[in-house]
Formats: sequence, structure tokens, C-alpha cells
Amino acid sequence: MIFRQLFDRESSTYTYLIAERQGGEALLIDPVLENTDTYVRLIEELDLRLVLAADTHIHADHVTALGALRERTDCATAMGEMSRAECVSVRFREGEKLRADNLKVDILYTPGHTDDSYSFLLPDRVLTGDTLLIRGTGRTDFQNGNAEEQYDSLFDGLLRLPEEMLVFPAHDYNGMTRSTIGEEKRFNPRLQVTDKQAYVDMMNGLKLGDPRLMDVAVPANRSCGLKPAA
Amino acid sequence: MIFRQLFDRESSTYTYLIAERQGGEALLIDPVLENTDTYVRLIEELDLRLVLAADTHIHADHVTALGALRERTDCATAMGEMSRAECVSVRFREGEKLRADNLKVDILYTPGHTDDSYSFLLPDRVLTGDTLLIRGTGRTDFQNGNAEEQYDSLFDGLLRLPEEMLVFPAHDYNGMTRSTIGEEKRFNPRLQVTDKQAYVDMMNGLKLGDPRLMDVAVPANRSCGLKPAA
Repeated sequence: MIFRQLFDRESSTYTYLIAERQGGEALLIDPVLENTDTYVRLIEELDLRLVLAADTHIHADHVTALGALRERTDCATAMGEMSRAECVSVRFREGEKLRADNLKVDILYTPGHTDDSYSFLLPDRVLTGDTLLIRGTGRTDFQNGNAEEQYDSLFDGLLRLPEEMLVFPAHDYNGMTRSTIGEEKRFNPRLQVTDKQAYVDMMNGLKLGDPRLMDVAVPANRSCGLKPAA
Repeated sequence: MIFRQLFDRESSTYTYLIAERQGGEALLIDPVLENTDTYVRLIEELDLRLVLAADTHIHADHVTALGALRERTDCATAMGEMSRAECVSVRFREGEKLRADNLKVDILYTPGHTDDSYSFLLPDRVLTGDTLLIRGTGRTDFQNGNAEEQYDSLFDGLLRLPEEMLVFPAHDYNGMTRSTIGEEKRFNPRLQVTDKQAYVDMMNGLKLGDPRLMDVAVPANRSCGLKPAA
């Protein structure tokens, strides 16, 4: 498997390029508009054909490259059925799969950070979007976020995956590039709660400011990062 | 094997935590002083014992955490015999090995960026310091850097490693986290030269400004990042 983690320093976003083999089909998860050239160049260099670019959810902190990649590479674009983004050609749902040659990526619906948050599961690793971060969890206070749903997505979902499963989030702000489910269960401070109510109280007490790009990014991302026609 | 890549956003430095197994001995390569707490916490969480912290060379763009880690964890500290750093407890040379339990890391002397630049070789990956970067090479215009020596370190050294060998550099400024020897041979623009003289001419024509922290970092790093006794 080809698995490349790419970092956008401005928004601390991780983008993932996934393929079964050199010369084959590729998926790109959570691409950032400003890095489109980098992605296209790397995809060409690795002799890959981008078949699909997908976002784990509508991001509020950066503009997606989905539309730009579709224009540049003719790839399909995908968001979850809950994303209410009319611009994409594929709207996936829990239980479906993304495919690149014989590689299958399972789709898990993991709401809480937003009501359109999904995770992508490979045999040995999971892309957790903003649901599960390394030693953190995504905020739940905008875009129909919901701390109760996030608790369920974590404790009845992601945290039931095998302990040794690698965790690759959509962001990291502290220089960490990967974790495991076991590590997060033990050392993620947000997960050391006794019950759902304690989690909800903690998340609702965070009092965070709005993301800097929110007013730009959310509407832009609903149209795949391209300006809507006038 | 445990292999963790950590990113320092301020200097775009990659630090590598390497161990054979959870509960065992660990090595830390190119640690950054400001991130010492992060390293110590992660080492504790993974139930590792830091036996040795090493720098690939005397860095000019950040202050090393070697001294701070020795004070915090009692680890050995290592730089190459060419580093002229009296502060370290181990001075390694080409052909020797770093060890963590049964894991052996081969040491290659790869001068050119500086005259004390080393690379660290594992069975499937190589830590290339500033000698070989992703789609770049380390500048050769200070700290006894030498473009001819760098050409030899690359073309008669690192680039003779197997094509599929993973490349993990000490820095990346473009969001790339890894590469391979084959990729760099084909796509690294600095390596598309016809001969040594062309490489030397290119490197000597770069006309780069000094690193921002150079006047602070180089003397500090010669004393392992700790202030010399008055």
C-alpha cells in the first residue's frame, strides 16, 4: 500500500494519499486548496491516477481542494450524505466503501464534531477526521456539533477498534504525526471520563473562539472550494 | 519496531523516536529543545527508556534538546566524532552502530551540508539529516559545508541504497513527511545533474541568506543546548 501523509502548516491539516500500488488508482482525503499543486505533482511522480478526492466533513479552518482537483485531474469528489454539499459527485454513507484498485476503505459515520463527520477505516489504520485527534477530540460547538453524539462515536465506535490500530487524524497542532487506539484510550485527556455526561460537560465548558477562517471556509467548502456561479 | 516522527513547526525539524518494542530502550534523533516535554511525555506513555539522544549534525536553525534530555532522563548523548562537541558522552563514527535492545542503527558519514553530517540507516529506512531532503538537499555554504563532498555523500552513498528504502530527513518545508531513495533519484531537482561539477556550480550559485537562529544555535548546540558554565 502507498500511504502518504501530507501536512498543511497554515491550518495544521493532514491530507492522506492512499493507493494499493504504484501505477494504480489513488484516493486523496482532506486535501487543502493551497496545496493542490503539491498533490498533483506527487500523484504524477508516483504514477498514480487520482480516482476520488474526499473530505471527512465540511471543514471550518481551511478551504477544500476537491473542486480544484476535479478540474485538474477529472477525479470524482466525495463527501458524506450528511454534508449537504451539492457540488460532489459521490455522497457516501456508513457501511459503504471507497475503492482504489483492490484496496477497500470502510466508511464509518462518526458525528459529534459536526453532524457530517465520517472516519475512514483501513485494515491496520483509521483516518479519524476531527472526531478523534491525538491526545484530543474535535470541538463540538458549531456546525451542528454535538458532544453526546461525539461520545457515542468515540466510545461505541472508534475506541472499540483494536488497540494496535494506527490513528491518523485530520489535524495535529503539537507535532505528532500518528497514534494508536490503545494510546488514545490511555493517554488522551478528553477520554478519561467516567460517563457520557462528564464528557458533555467537559466539551460544553471549553469556550473556544471561532476558527479564523470559518466564515470563509464553510460556505466555500459547501461548493467544493470553488466559487459558486454568479 | 516503534518509529515516531515528530514535527517542530517553528524550525520545520523532524525528530525521530525509535525503539525495538514497547517497554524497551529508545533512541531519539535530532530533538528540539522547546519540545523536550513532549518527548519525555511520549517516551513515558510508550513505556520506553531513553538510552541515547543523538544529533545528525550541529544544527544551525534550532537548539538541540540533547543536554535537557540528559538532565531529565539520564540518557547518553551522542554526536559524530566530527562535531567537535565536548558536551556529549558518545562520539560515533562511520561504521559504528547505535543500539536500542536488539535494534541496530548503522552510522554513515555523509558530509557536505556540514563537515559533521551523518545519516542513520535501519533495514528499511534511512534518516538522512540535512544531506538528502525531500526534493532538495541541505545547503553547503556554511559550517565547513562542501558541495563536492555532498555530491560524493549522495551519489556514492545514499543514492546507492535500494530504491524502495524510505527516506526520513531532518527537515521538510513543504508538508512532505517521507520519501524513498527511488523517488529522490528521479524527482529531486538537485539530483538531476550530469556530473559533480554541475552539482557544485548549482549549490555554489544558490546565494541563500543565513539561518535566522544561526548565531544562537551553533554555539548553543556545541554545548548540547545547555548554557556553558560561566
